[in-house]
Amino acid sequence: MLYLVGLGLADETDITVKGLEVVKRAERVYLEAYTSILLVSKEKLEAFYGRPVIEADRELVETGSDEILAGADKADVAFLVVGDPFGATTHTDLVLRAREMGIESKVIPNASIMSGIGCTGLQLYNFGQTVSMVFFTENWKPTSYYDRVKENVQLGLHTLVLLDIKVKEQSYENMARGRRIFEPPRYMTVAQCASQMLETEEERKEGVFGPDSLAVGAARVGGPDQKLVVGTLKELSEVDMGPPLHSLVLLGRKAHDLERLYIREFAVDKATFDASWNKGYGATS
Amino acid sequence: MLYLVGLGLADETDITVKGLEVVKRAERVYLEAYTSILLVSKEKLEAFYGRPVIEADRELVETGSDEILAGADKADVAFLVVGDPFGATTHTDLVLRAREMGIESKVIPNASIMSGIGCTGLQLYNFGQTVSMVFFTENWKPTSYYDRVKENVQLGLHTLVLLDIKVKEQSYENMARGRRIFEPPRYMTVAQCASQMLETEEERKEGVFGPDSLAVGAARVGGPDQKLVVGTLKELSEVDMGPPLHSLVLLGRKAHDLERLYIREFAVDKATFDASWNKGYGATS
Repeated sequence: MLYLVGLGLADETDITVKGLEVVKRAERVYLEAYTSILLVSKEKLEAFYGRPVIEADRELVETGSDEILAGADKADVAFLVVGDPFGATTHTDLVLRAREMGIESKVIPNASIMSGIGCTGLQLYNFGQTVSMVFFTENWKPTSYYDRVKENVQLGLHTLVLLDIKVKEQSYENMARGRRIFEPPRYMTVAQCASQMLETEEERKEGVFGPDSLAVGAARVGGPDQKLVVGTLKELSEVDMGPPLHSLVLLGRKAHDLERLYIREFAVDKATFDASWNKGYGATS
Repeated sequence: MLYLVGLGLADETDITVKGLEVVKRAERVYLEAYTSILLVSKEKLEAFYGRPVIEADRELVETGSDEILAGADKADVAFLVVGDPFGATTHTDLVLRAREMGIESKVIPNASIMSGIGCTGLQLYNFGQTVSMVFFTENWKPTSYYDRVKENVQLGLHTLVLLDIKVKEQSYENMARGRRIFEPPRYMTVAQCASQMLETEEERKEGVFGPDSLAVGAARVGGPDQKLVVGTLKELSEVDMGPPLHSLVLLGRKAHDLERLYIREFAVDKATFDASWNKGYGATS
């Protein structure tokens, strides 16, 4: 049996009791370690589980799935995923591959940022499509996310923006020369995301959002030092929210008063918050 | 401290290790028992936790929050919520009330149906707004959900439909006479939901969906007997998916091939699935 086990969002104790039982009795345990991270190290997980864990990087998962699945028709193999196994990142291809090989699979769900973002006090019912923001480079500033945000904005809905992480990335030079030397990991911050959004708006000029648009920055959701900051995109582009992981929610126009009441507490500046709110939010249709 | 602890979706072992620690040491433990249910009884939870649990019905939560929060400035009170505390149902009002009283609160996230529905193999990125379906009565068949589904359909997105549950409801007569006699609990089935959707379409005639529209029925997500069934709304209106809880996803036109591959396995009838798919799904824009 292949078990896909969600680890939740913050630390080793966010695994479910059911998930922990699976991890303890499985023959091999893999940790998916490239689409998201916990706030604790692999060593801490191993100490908590009382057993070794095999780190599964993108290469292993995407090209070495047969290695992961080897023997899973007879013994139990656990594949650990930060958040929920079918949350922000889906591992449907691994399950499909298992199905082809006649191996059963089972999912142990857990909190995902897609639902955990409810900690902002924003109603999950009022969210439209979730989008991802990648690190812009000099020559590559993809704006396809902007079209989907536009669709949400036109409907008055909130948009959850998931922020890029770069783990085990190679420089072009090292890749070209086949050297397995990796760059230090990078995690996009709320400030970087807000800046990139304003940069896109500058370029596209369709008025989807602007410096006065309200957004919520969330850092280390579910962790002991979870932090929420509410402000305009201009304000958030200058905010320091500390260590990763960060996410951002662009507030929809149809945000209602209970949501306002909840998030105002976290405003960088309550005066600019109130001014921006009164200009464009709280519409009932 | 007020702890809002998510219980996850299925049974007593879906609580996180962190959540279980809170439950064991809290002074009082409440179980929110009217917006969702686990697949196990309160007694089973109490046996697993090794302590009594106070059932919190709608009346207590909505009008007796001061009773729940009493003493929470000094001792720990745990408020258990099926799924995630800020998932499908938000308990922001309880947190706001605590804030007013100077009581800190902390959320222990868990799987919510809003992310757990990823078990269908449908990408959470491709979902639009989530809607709720209530039990229609002779004289009350609200169709406001239809407008939101329409918005999703126009964008080619999936729609998660959460199905009504009726717990501790009184008949009009008993309510009028002030008798605390409650009707047996009712949980909407996938078949009832699909039928009501077709009834709404019959009435509104805006072509948002029809008998041939594809949908996924999900029952007991995360449980040992989780069941997925894929079919047209017509097919699903006749399907028996067993005990609660059920949810339904109306498939969006932009569903892609990996999603098709994943869900086809669960089709009531692969021929009608293929026919419906080829007629209207898999569009790339």
